[in-house]
Amino acid sequence: MTDQDLLLVFDETVTRAGVDRWLRHLESAGAPTQIYRLGAGHVLPVSTMDSAGTVDAVAAAGPDLPAPTRRVPREGQAWLGRRELRPGGTHVSLGPVTIGDGSVAVIAGPCAVENPEQMNATAELVAAHGAVALRGGAFKPRTSPHAFQGLGFSGLELLVEARKRTGLPFVTEVVDAEHVKRLAEVVDGFQIGARNMQNFALLSAVGQSGLPVVLKRGFGCTVEETLAAGEYLLLEGNDQVMLCERGIRTFEPSARFTLDLTAVALWKQRTHLPVIVDPSHSGGRPELVEPLSLAAVAAGADALLIDVHVQPEQALCDGNQALRPEQFAGLMERLAGAAAGLGRRLSGGH
Amino acid sequence: MTDQDLLLVFDETVTRAGVDRWLRHLESAGAPTQIYRLGAGHVLPVSTMDSAGTVDAVAAAGPDLPAPTRRVPREGQAWLGRRELRPGGTHVSLGPVTIGDGSVAVIAGPCAVENPEQMNATAELVAAHGAVALRGGAFKPRTSPHAFQGLGFSGLELLVEARKRTGLPFVTEVVDAEHVKRLAEVVDGFQIGARNMQNFALLSAVGQSGLPVVLKRGFGCTVEETLAAGEYLLLEGNDQVMLCERGIRTFEPSARFTLDLTAVALWKQRTHLPVIVDPSHSGGRPELVEPLSLAAVAAGADALLIDVHVQPEQALCDGNQALRPEQFAGLMERLAGAAAGLGRRLSGGH
Amino acid sequence: MTDQDLLLVFDETVTRAGVDRWLRHLESAGAPTQIYRLGAGHVLPVSTMDSAGTVDAVAAAGPDLPAPTRRVPREGQAWLGRRELRPGGTHVSLGPVTIGDGSVAVIAGPCAVENPEQMNATAELVAAHGAVALRGGAFKPRTSPHAFQGLGFSGLELLVEARKRTGLPFVTEVVDAEHVKRLAEVVDGFQIGARNMQNFALLSAVGQSGLPVVLKRGFGCTVEETLAAGEYLLLEGNDQVMLCERGIRTFEPSARFTLDLTAVALWKQRTHLPVIVDPSHSGGRPELVEPLSLAAVAAGADALLIDVHVQPEQALCDGNQALRPEQFAGLMERLAGAAAGLGRRLSGGH
Amino acid sequence: MTDQDLLLVFDETVTRAGVDRWLRHLESAGAPTQIYRLGAGHVLPVSTMDSAGTVDAVAAAGPDLPAPTRRVPREGQAWLGRRELRPGGTHVSLGPVTIGDGSVAVIAGPCAVENPEQMNATAELVAAHGAVALRGGAFKPRTSPHAFQGLGFSGLELLVEARKRTGLPFVTEVVDAEHVKRLAEVVDGFQIGARNMQNFALLSAVGQSGLPVVLKRGFGCTVEETLAAGEYLLLEGNDQVMLCERGIRTFEPSARFTLDLTAVALWKQRTHLPVIVDPSHSGGRPELVEPLSLAAVAAGADALLIDVHVQPEQALCDGNQALRPEQFAGLMERLAGAAAGLGRRLSGGH
Repeated sequence: MTDQDLLLVFDETVTRAGVDRWLRHLESAGAPTQIYRLGAGHVLPVSTMDSAGTVDAVAAAGPDLPAPTRRVPREGQAWLGRRELRPGGTHVSLGPVTIGDGSVAVIAGPCAVENPEQMNATAELVAAHGAVALRGGAFKPRTSPHAFQGLGFSGLELLVEARKRTGLPFVTEVVDAEHVKRLAEVVDGFQIGARNMQNFALLSAVGQSGLPVVLKRGFGCTVEETLAAGEYLLLEGNDQVMLCERGIRTFEPSARFTLDLTAVALWKQRTHLPVIVDPSHSGGRPELVEPLSLAAVAAGADALLIDVHVQPEQALCDGNQALRPEQFAGLMERLAGAAAGLGRRLSGGH
Repeated sequence: MTDQDLLLVFDETVTRAGVDRWLRHLESAGAPTQIYRLGAGHVLPVSTMDSAGTVDAVAAAGPDLPAPTRRVPREGQAWLGRRELRPGGTHVSLGPVTIGDGSVAVIAGPCAVENPEQMNATAELVAAHGAVALRGGAFKPRTSPHAFQGLGFSGLELLVEARKRTGLPFVTEVVDAEHVKRLAEVVDGFQIGARNMQNFALLSAVGQSGLPVVLKRGFGCTVEETLAAGEYLLLEGNDQVMLCERGIRTFEPSARFTLDLTAVALWKQRTHLPVIVDPSHSGGRPELVEPLSLAAVAAGADALLIDVHVQPEQALCDGNQALRPEQFAGLMERLAGAAAGLGRRLSGGH
Repeated sequence: MTDQDLLLVFDETVTRAGVDRWLRHLESAGAPTQIYRLGAGHVLPVSTMDSAGTVDAVAAAGPDLPAPTRRVPREGQAWLGRRELRPGGTHVSLGPVTIGDGSVAVIAGPCAVENPEQMNATAELVAAHGAVALRGGAFKPRTSPHAFQGLGFSGLELLVEARKRTGLPFVTEVVDAEHVKRLAEVVDGFQIGARNMQNFALLSAVGQSGLPVVLKRGFGCTVEETLAAGEYLLLEGNDQVMLCERGIRTFEPSARFTLDLTAVALWKQRTHLPVIVDPSHSGGRPELVEPLSLAAVAAGADALLIDVHVQPEQALCDGNQALRPEQFAGLMERLAGAAAGLGRRLSGGH
Repeated sequence: MTDQDLLLVFDETVTRAGVDRWLRHLESAGAPTQIYRLGAGHVLPVSTMDSAGTVDAVAAAGPDLPAPTRRVPREGQAWLGRRELRPGGTHVSLGPVTIGDGSVAVIAGPCAVENPEQMNATAELVAAHGAVALRGGAFKPRTSPHAFQGLGFSGLELLVEARKRTGLPFVTEVVDAEHVKRLAEVVDGFQIGARNMQNFALLSAVGQSGLPVVLKRGFGCTVEETLAAGEYLLLEGNDQVMLCERGIRTFEPSARFTLDLTAVALWKQRTHLPVIVDPSHSGGRPELVEPLSLAAVAAGADALLIDVHVQPEQALCDGNQALRPEQFAGLMERLAGAAAGLGRRLSGGH
């Protein structure tokens, strides 16, 4: 072992009591540290630089100390999320759905929740064609304060109603740390929007909820900064975190954003967190959704977040990018084929 | 008058009572609207599209109604901030300092507040060389949760102490809407960081404080999006808003960010809000601060935000971009010359 | 028919003599135009704005004039390449290989031709695993004049030798209009590099060769500018043009360039020209080649351009991005699966 | 002296014969090298890594060998252009005008040469207001082959005529290596456009002409790549090279390009070549030219390249960015003031 920092990773088979004994052992050897939670497991960082005695202390661990599941070097500024800590990847449980198990999950729904008819019709449509979860915005962060900001908490009730009708869990965006507790009582998962990816107060509040979170990459933020933002959630003891690529800002004006699938490939290699792609907001055009969805799955995405609207021309927000019912049905069929060709399958048995 | 929306702008010489009479007059003519505050004045948007009678109603305004100071078309999604509403520009009062009056104000200090010695020494230094306000971060939004996050409220006390010693007002960053009220009791002005430019909950809270705000452009956000973010502050009735260019993300790796002085020129033409430039965080290198500062003033900036550190090599945060004392002194001298050549002067009589 | 420009498109079943008669008919009606070649067919633009009589002239065409295969509006600045002119897409014949027929063609080889052993070993390897054409640079445009510039014409001989051994055609980059004629005697296809995409003198010279061309997108150029660059080649009567996405410059530093698969989807919708993707130069890392290749095919790419080196660590140029033999073998296997899942197949029967 | 490469720099006071003796001395010591020209001086790179004896050989140089003017480390891939070789900067002689001597030179004229009236009227106007050289495009590289490509050689004659009338030298763009010799007979200086910055065949041909060259930065190219492109010109023994910042591609849509004045500051620190800024093509709007020009000079630019048109609304190319006569007059006045405030002056005594 060379002169660097080390992480002792204990999976859920090692009790907290055992990890606490490690902590005391290290402290008594002059190498104080602290325990981090990673799901039902724990991580103990050990600095072999700060303290000469640390290496010996680790080596001298007696049989009363539980063996770490793995020992990995501590690298980068987002080390809790690094893939080496969980080579098999993290499974996120969004209601009854598992994301990150190798299957391809489709989360679909309207950009903004508008009214009961729209929400229910869209939810039933996407459920019928194989979506395993719903999306829909009740709180919409808008560039201008003069634009439609969403229905707020009354929109939330429509999502609850749609969940009841279809049995599908839902994710919805949270824009204010003060809303987290109230929302946490009803949502299945949170979404943090691109504009708030580095709103660290919001990240901490959402992390504390313990609920699944779709963390969207800021359109001006890097691959590594997104991992670091995810680390704010992980640090609260919440490992139910999914990173979402939704396009970055570039000089190219032909689409709303430039989808960065290199980021998807890099995240799959660098972090144990599941990766989601939002082809709807990235391209900003319905005719781009299918090719970008197929490409995203081929690049390794665990899930897709897709805007569907039963009547796009009447949408209050971003309707010009939503898929129509028949487009969504076609997409699901092609996705199933592509997944099979890649040795995967659509989540939900489709 | 053509078929478009119109703003009736009333400056501070028109009483609220007079504006209220306009509101009732329009309502009775079937053209309901609402009153917006702009500093000590008011703005009344009139839609000539929604209501056929509106044009006539405006034309039919009798002598009992005060004449609007000006009538301007309502354009864009950030219309309260448009220059047409205040062609002379907004004057922001940061403590005793006026920003936006044609002079060049220099706001200087350490990136992060670290300890009393550093804060006081830096404050006295910049005061001695002509800075008219202090900057210093007590709350530092950091990419990684494992990095130094600032001293928090205890850092704030050091800023208060430095203000007492030098007589200079200070601005400091706010990262959490929950902190706004407590901070508002002591700060002279807020700073909203680039990462939070579209944290709309924070914008609204800061807007409500009524205090001056330096709103930093998000490094992935456009010129128009920054104007729209400023509009969130204006909508709370707070016109003490300054837009700050601090570099955007581009493909160029030679500097930390690419300073966009085209944005400064555009803002000076499009908005009545003062414009600030931060050459320190943009370039990320001390040797870039002087040329970028001079260029910023030549492009029309009303103020500069400059990192200075008495011992940059010991800085806890971004020390590698701070100016040393002698560099700052040289900069102030060159700035005074450049300002004179442009028909301006340094704020504070230098 | 509304008030706009129109293209009369004649496919190869209409003789040049027939198109000439159309030209004379229009001229005699006061609507002079000119004939453009598109492969073995022709296109006649008709301006319905410049000449009041044109519409009537088109309508009045008698039975002696051959019916156009199709009539499409003239839109954009790159109208010869628009998909409407050839909804079935252009087939490019690179030696015995057809690109653009729905199959997935893999073109592989070393970044730079270095010596006979390297070239032959790599060529035999990629042939054995299903590549249908070779790539290899004899002339390397390098950022710095002090860097290795390729073997030049002697490198070309090594490509010819490799073709003889494997039976695979090859493409190679041309960097100087003066080289075109000499190269055209031996190469199967040209490549125009990203740095030369808007070197219009080179484009015209290569267009005149009539040989297949891989036109790489400039890393700072847009989707539409690439179409316009392709138009320079088409205007020379050469329709054997393939557009190649190889990554664009963005703020993201984790990979060498950001692969823009949205561009691939847009080109497949907007132009009849085949689309190629180069995942090797885009990502700049071998571990990115497989996910980006699969994603490119899923987004609709007709072919891939892949760097392979039998001993990457000894490469003179960009060795750190080349696939090793076993990586290439694995990639071809996964590509075959993905193609099948998308209802396609690998070119060459694999 | 540490373990690195070294450049022996000989200025024009050292004869070529003396430098040749150095070459033979090093060869006889087992350290073969080659002589590079830098204007009227020479540079001899000495590798202290390749040859153990080199350091000794340099140290053992006897009194028969002329002392190098300076010894500087060889760094980067564009070392002939590095400022350390000529700390005082290179002076470029464009006809009777010197660029790079600390003054601010204004080069102005129409984007494209259109006809004698336009060219002459514009030339006389800009001469009357203090421009010291003319610009005007006879060959226009256009994105689309269907757009106006310039008057070609007949446009060149109009520039010659305008030079005769005003006495001002002119620069004009060259787009084809085959044109260089013919153009070199009449032009005062070449311009290489942004799209051709990495057209290395063109760079070499222009370098060989020995004439002054304005090398425009590619809009997708970095600060260092521009230096490396300049190195292609320097390597031909031509030191009359000026780097021109004209805006880069970014996500910001409010202006045509984003002017990168950080690049200007970096180039002034890194290279001895003069730096020019083109605010007209960067901003793409006349109202941006003045603030960007002032900012460019403040950032250290040696010259400005400005589009002026006597009747912008009739321009065949980019007329919407040209200054009108009265705008140009106002700009020159403000520039003179700003230059004075910076301790500089306008070239030509204004």
